[in-house]
Amino acid sequence: MLNVALIGSTGAVGQEFVVALNRHPWFNLTHVVSSERSAGKKYIDAIRDTQSGILKWHNREPVPGYIRDTVISKLDDINPKDFDLIFTAIESDAAQTIEPKLATHVPVISTAAAFRYESDVPILIPGINDEHVELLNKQKEDRGWSGFIAPLPNCTTTGLAITLKPLITNFGVKSVFMTSMQALSGAGRSPGVVALDILDNVIPYIPKEEEKVQIETKKILGNYDYQSKQIVSDELKVSCTCTRVPVSDGHTEVVFVETSKNTDPESVAKQMMHFSDNISIKGLPSAPKDYIIVNDDPTRPQPRIDREVNDGMTTVVGRLRKDSVFENGIKYVLLTHNEKMGSAKGAILLAELLKTKKII
Amino acid sequence: MLNVALIGSTGAVGQEFVVALNRHPWFNLTHVVSSERSAGKKYIDAIRDTQSGILKWHNREPVPGYIRDTVISKLDDINPKDFDLIFTAIESDAAQTIEPKLATHVPVISTAAAFRYESDVPILIPGINDEHVELLNKQKEDRGWSGFIAPLPNCTTTGLAITLKPLITNFGVKSVFMTSMQALSGAGRSPGVVALDILDNVIPYIPKEEEKVQIETKKILGNYDYQSKQIVSDELKVSCTCTRVPVSDGHTEVVFVETSKNTDPESVAKQMMHFSDNISIKGLPSAPKDYIIVNDDPTRPQPRIDREVNDGMTTVVGRLRKDSVFENGIKYVLLTHNEKMGSAKGAILLAELLKTKKII
Amino acid sequence: MLNVALIGSTGAVGQEFVVALNRHPWFNLTHVVSSERSAGKKYIDAIRDTQSGILKWHNREPVPGYIRDTVISKLDDINPKDFDLIFTAIESDAAQTIEPKLATHVPVISTAAAFRYESDVPILIPGINDEHVELLNKQKEDRGWSGFIAPLPNCTTTGLAITLKPLITNFGVKSVFMTSMQALSGAGRSPGVVALDILDNVIPYIPKEEEKVQIETKKILGNYDYQSKQIVSDELKVSCTCTRVPVSDGHTEVVFVETSKNTDPESVAKQMMHFSDNISIKGLPSAPKDYIIVNDDPTRPQPRIDREVNDGMTTVVGRLRKDSVFENGIKYVLLTHNEKMGSAKGAILLAELLKTKKII
Amino acid sequence: MLNVALIGSTGAVGQEFVVALNRHPWFNLTHVVSSERSAGKKYIDAIRDTQSGILKWHNREPVPGYIRDTVISKLDDINPKDFDLIFTAIESDAAQTIEPKLATHVPVISTAAAFRYESDVPILIPGINDEHVELLNKQKEDRGWSGFIAPLPNCTTTGLAITLKPLITNFGVKSVFMTSMQALSGAGRSPGVVALDILDNVIPYIPKEEEKVQIETKKILGNYDYQSKQIVSDELKVSCTCTRVPVSDGHTEVVFVETSKNTDPESVAKQMMHFSDNISIKGLPSAPKDYIIVNDDPTRPQPRIDREVNDGMTTVVGRLRKDSVFENGIKYVLLTHNEKMGSAKGAILLAELLKTKKII
Repeated sequence: MLNVALIGSTGAVGQEFVVALNRHPWFNLTHVVSSERSAGKKYIDAIRDTQSGILKWHNREPVPGYIRDTVISKLDDINPKDFDLIFTAIESDAAQTIEPKLATHVPVISTAAAFRYESDVPILIPGINDEHVELLNKQKEDRGWSGFIAPLPNCTTTGLAITLKPLITNFGVKSVFMTSMQALSGAGRSPGVVALDILDNVIPYIPKEEEKVQIETKKILGNYDYQSKQIVSDELKVSCTCTRVPVSDGHTEVVFVETSKNTDPESVAKQMMHFSDNISIKGLPSAPKDYIIVNDDPTRPQPRIDREVNDGMTTVVGRLRKDSVFENGIKYVLLTHNEKMGSAKGAILLAELLKTKKII
Repeated sequence: MLNVALIGSTGAVGQEFVVALNRHPWFNLTHVVSSERSAGKKYIDAIRDTQSGILKWHNREPVPGYIRDTVISKLDDINPKDFDLIFTAIESDAAQTIEPKLATHVPVISTAAAFRYESDVPILIPGINDEHVELLNKQKEDRGWSGFIAPLPNCTTTGLAITLKPLITNFGVKSVFMTSMQALSGAGRSPGVVALDILDNVIPYIPKEEEKVQIETKKILGNYDYQSKQIVSDELKVSCTCTRVPVSDGHTEVVFVETSKNTDPESVAKQMMHFSDNISIKGLPSAPKDYIIVNDDPTRPQPRIDREVNDGMTTVVGRLRKDSVFENGIKYVLLTHNEKMGSAKGAILLAELLKTKKII
Repeated sequence: MLNVALIGSTGAVGQEFVVALNRHPWFNLTHVVSSERSAGKKYIDAIRDTQSGILKWHNREPVPGYIRDTVISKLDDINPKDFDLIFTAIESDAAQTIEPKLATHVPVISTAAAFRYESDVPILIPGINDEHVELLNKQKEDRGWSGFIAPLPNCTTTGLAITLKPLITNFGVKSVFMTSMQALSGAGRSPGVVALDILDNVIPYIPKEEEKVQIETKKILGNYDYQSKQIVSDELKVSCTCTRVPVSDGHTEVVFVETSKNTDPESVAKQMMHFSDNISIKGLPSAPKDYIIVNDDPTRPQPRIDREVNDGMTTVVGRLRKDSVFENGIKYVLLTHNEKMGSAKGAILLAELLKTKKII
Repeated sequence: MLNVALIGSTGAVGQEFVVALNRHPWFNLTHVVSSERSAGKKYIDAIRDTQSGILKWHNREPVPGYIRDTVISKLDDINPKDFDLIFTAIESDAAQTIEPKLATHVPVISTAAAFRYESDVPILIPGINDEHVELLNKQKEDRGWSGFIAPLPNCTTTGLAITLKPLITNFGVKSVFMTSMQALSGAGRSPGVVALDILDNVIPYIPKEEEKVQIETKKILGNYDYQSKQIVSDELKVSCTCTRVPVSDGHTEVVFVETSKNTDPESVAKQMMHFSDNISIKGLPSAPKDYIIVNDDPTRPQPRIDREVNDGMTTVVGRLRKDSVFENGIKYVLLTHNEKMGSAKGAILLAELLKTKKII
């Protein structure tokens, strides 16, 4: 068992970590850190609204017993060296200063965007770009750190990159148009999306989201050049429009792909469905049975029906059709659970991979 | 004043016609036709549920006084020759047999898809493809009719074709990717979309919709060859994915356009905003002040805020940006009111145009 | 193991039965009956839309393997005597004629309202009015049947009657005002509530619902007079207003109760929380750990958070307060899962009780 | 024309005032006050998000031209004596200190709760308790003010008090049970209700709301004792449960009323419908044609259909039925627009009344 700390434990993502680490076979969450205001309180009291006494707990599962009485630490009171691994669930601004201090001593897996775009930082998705793990060694060496920072991608990037991977491998991908219909939980809860703004409505804009997806997708799907020790972003072109819809959980993405070789929906479906047969996530504790499921019911995927498939760790694809603009092209709709594979539980899957690769 | 009849007057679209023709300066709705079951009843009684006594009236405006006591006719009881113009708001199957019988005698403007794809039938949008009106003369001649059938486009096509028109004229258009997020009212009410299926959900499929939009867009934007007397569909390529979202009215469409010439968002915005300055709809009773409005607030257009602009006759465009895949490309989001410009009120605007062109 | 048939197996409630009977320790579902149209097909094909090939399956859990290939029977093709028990999930009109024919031979547990209000038919809720089971014997005798008809209450009655029971026992109840905010699934799916009618809306009327709740509550909470062999309805007075809200599952009910004796929220909470300690449902396979949970967080119960508690078999109570009108009164809010305890799974719980009572 | 200032002009309620005072025939809004941060800016710039440049404007009508360039004042920079009347749209805490300072010099009409429960402060609804206006004179005298503070009731109280008034007058009212289903806009926008908390949900609690409604209703419907110069609260008893539902605008309230005399739905309907025939609001610029409308369609009132009746100034009543618990009782459902009659526009109606009574 590895000893694990969590920085940012009472917010929406922090709560997901607390649930996902409950009875984890490899990771033992011994310390939870939160703001000064919460430090010294028991976890269960720290998530209680002081005025009303109401629990600010956002998961459907109740607060796990193992964490209820754990006392929240201040950041300064923990010694990073006491841990084998630290998860962070904090805002990008805070991550900018906190994460390097921790990574000096210990591996850090982060849900923040702060370091995603630095040249010695890979954006890892287990089974998609495992060779980028190599870059963590360079990061440690160059920065003189005992640990490293390994950030997750943006939750909208994850499902897109996963589904593009078998396309790249088998048919080549030249360009991608993607329109997202993103869930409310992607915007968090402080305050997140105000109900009056989204009821009976679509908001056709999510600040910075499109740029993130466009850059991250190319980086994740790029090759690792072992010579120069850097990631060479894939040459595929990506154009996105990201919107918010009145859906609680589960990002729907409409994708049009230009492939290099000719292909057809049946071949693509086959490659997607068998994609996880032989990849590295096989057997990891948090890995789903299938990384991608292709549903041939034309009304699927639907967020309300499909987001919980394999506890939100599977990307569900539907509406695979030949494209009518590209000479060689395919189009489809995907659904990815932004709070599970796209967030805390995806971070834990990454930790599991890095442990099997012995870099943690 | 022209004498007008309406076939299919008690359904959702029929009710919109009844509202939109209230106090119309040119058209006098003298006869309303509905199914056998309703014939002989007053309009107000025909829309009343016989069991519960509840009015099945779907507009926010109350039932107009002028129509309340009008007695519903059977189709067989009216003589088409008594009218200058007939509007139809019936299902495609019924339209297939009914509309030709009427058109033998009188101009028919239809919201049904039944005849849209025949070679001697134009799909008209006032101000967009007025030269296609010419084909109505050929239709009359070839079929030996005194009237003609002039169908509206599908409600999802309308906003797309309107916004593409100034792009074609000024920059040329080679290909278009469009993802729609369509409103519930587009599916009607008998029963339309069931609440349980769409609450907290997106349905990524609308039967036949994508094919309709792809074919209609090319036909509408095609040229009329006066020599051969036929429409030559535009060569632009279109690829669509059509989805249903929990929004009552107003279709949102996310559009990626490859242009022939290089352009930029400012030039496109200018062409769109000035598009209606000199087109044929100017001065028509149902025409909006602007056919297209470009909003530079990045959070717009939003269905709840923008669908009622100019009583739903304006297409609102936002998020105009340079595209990141196409060498010459632009992307934007549009909002079009599927029940106003995209349906009954759009049909009346078309009738107004045809009257000024003296073909009615 | 008892052999069980299900009449009405492909509709929304029928599908719930199919899920809830999967791997049931006591009941073996061997025959499923549906309309002529479905008879002869495999279950999995019978729930498939013939035109589109789409599965019309409404549960989040997939179609259980055990039932996929079971061939649907016609009603006339099964022999009631082959079964120990028959569940029905059909409309009231059909139940009126079908259920007596079956009950002549075998016990019938019904979700329909058809026989609820007959004097020799109890409306049973396990643990609430078990002594009414006695009336089934009289029903058998008087009607000369080998079986009987035992209908469930309306799904809105269930939670109200369960929470009133400990109040009656401990404090006496004189009158009740109840306002319901009912879920969409209570209206079924054919077509049920149309999305356009309920989005951003409340519909303050559900036909016949208020009368049902008012009558059923009194009957369920009445005493069984062993002498005259009839149920004497409780003398409490009930007044309801039933509304529909945009919630998928889970009926919320706001209750104001006048008690006979003085009481306070703490005493009521205690009686409710310990209510199921010693009642007959203890140990039944479908029984929840607690029949009633009282939550002292003032923002609870909420349908989205609380409806799945104990797989929907628990009534969650909150906002217990002293009433400000009644001299002796209490008010609270309850949440009951209309598709679980209020429907198929509640029917199975009843069957389990009747088996332990050896009347099945 | 009276010169008017508005304190708290950029928030949700402030924006409503700005719209409702546009082209008002009697009131000329010359000065708008807001926080230090906004002071010195033009109104149009003060409501613009400084980071994104997005207008934070919540009305469907665009920002009225008359106010766009008005420069926001600091509170300290205006001289209360320059105005005939001041409207406030601020939080209760701020109102506590600001309103008395203003009222020393000038009449203040307030949407805040701060002074509602003081013995020399009436809670006025035009046409309901006009004799309470008299208390404003005592307030001025006792406090030695040139002006006074006249607060509106809570938006949930308004519709209830209006509909109870004709019941009290004609039949007497002994007790009332009310369950509200309140709209999102009642909670404001900073941040108001978070979308994730209310989608597919009901929240059965609104802090302090029930106490407010219970106390205010009795005070509003009380008599003014000219001798002792105080309001004697009505003796009717009120018990409420207030809930939040996923509806944008319009509070629905389910009401059970015990009357002193026997009555029936027809008599009540008649009294309600004719209630505004002879009351003081007749002819005021903001008064609706009818203060109460009774709809006999059992599916009404519905917020989406009925909230805009008479621009939200009419309370719509439906489902009038005899009650089944009370010996003399009636039950009904009402709908009141919380942002129109229940807020800014209601405040302006009150100002109009006070002007005709020459106390302004």
